[in-house]
Amino acid sequence: MKALEEKIQKEGQVYPGNVLKVGSFVNHQIDIPFMCECGKEFYNEFKDAGVNKVLTIEASGIAIAALTAQYFNCPMVFAKKTKTSNIADNVLFATVKSYTHNCVNQIMVEKQFVNPGDKVLIVDDFLAMGEALNGLIKIVEDAGAEVVGAGIIIEKAFQEGGAALREKGYKIHSLARVQSMDAETGKIEFVD
Amino acid sequence: MKALEEKIQKEGQVYPGNVLKVGSFVNHQIDIPFMCECGKEFYNEFKDAGVNKVLTIEASGIAIAALTAQYFNCPMVFAKKTKTSNIADNVLFATVKSYTHNCVNQIMVEKQFVNPGDKVLIVDDFLAMGEALNGLIKIVEDAGAEVVGAGIIIEKAFQEGGAALREKGYKIHSLARVQSMDAETGKIEFVD
Repeated sequence: MKALEEKIQKEGQVYPGNVLKVGSFVNHQIDIPFMCECGKEFYNEFKDAGVNKVLTIEASGIAIAALTAQYFNCPMVFAKKTKTSNIADNVLFATVKSYTHNCVNQIMVEKQFVNPGDKVLIVDDFLAMGEALNGLIKIVEDAGAEVVGAGIIIEKAFQEGGAALREKGYKIHSLARVQSMDAETGKIEFVD
Repeated sequence: MKALEEKIQKEGQVYPGNVLKVGSFVNHQIDIPFMCECGKEFYNEFKDAGVNKVLTIEASGIAIAALTAQYFNCPMVFAKKTKTSNIADNVLFATVKSYTHNCVNQIMVEKQFVNPGDKVLIVDDFLAMGEALNGLIKIVEDAGAEVVGAGIIIEKAFQEGGAALREKGYKIHSLARVQSMDAETGKIEFVD
């Protein structure tokens, strides 16, 4: 998605440790009209797949997942990162390492919200090592539902998550695929 | 909003400690078409207020805030609850007690995303003691911006948050106002 690559070039900031900061439009302040366009892209890509549920993980996936789900006219579910005092015991779990936050989270979805026969589109802001996506896929498949694919705003294509998942047969649609980025020069290159 | 009251009656579950669980459509699974209608209600209420930014707090406010912001055609910002490794030092802070999670959070927004002259609509799923809303108001006002009001899905009107904020002159628009609820009988009554 050309407009997204341009926006990343303009507003994205590269930090050491493969950190690409896009807090001005993706995951702190959210450029809502622009993210609606991203949601439409996901809809166009997956509109014939029978999607009846969109799944993401808190917190930075929620806005784009909500905006995307409206084009499918279906519910959105987000996996939670901590056990709150008013969540049911009847939950689906996965363990997810966060390289950004340098921690391991249990993520969970109440069983009642993902059911056998569901056709689930997973949406998230970033794909790098694939940790979050693998956790969400595990939750969907443990529920006996089907992952129809994943819509990702920015894939760090120089990390192995996307390649490994495509190798397993999952359809991963990333709107921008970063080939390389350099914290010293700030230069960001995309996969052709 | 009659349809919301009906939905709360049908799907809401009351637990001891004034917990109203609406995870089937508000804050775990999100009924996106329905939440779009709620967002339109907020738009209708505040459309003449010059809103140029919607503010919420992670995680359960994000979906409704994103859907609401699209009607205002403006950006949405969400306050974060923990200091991540890639957030700037230049942030606005507030301290917020969560009665649901029984903890105290620092919430923060990068200064660059709330500016003097901004007219900010705050959106959240619940208003009870007003802790989160007070924290978000502090952040907006510390930035020299203006709170034009707050759009709330469910207000627990038997707790003091809403009354105290209206007393101070803030416009609080709650789509459903719970007068009382009973964990034993499951009965929920709304303010007329």
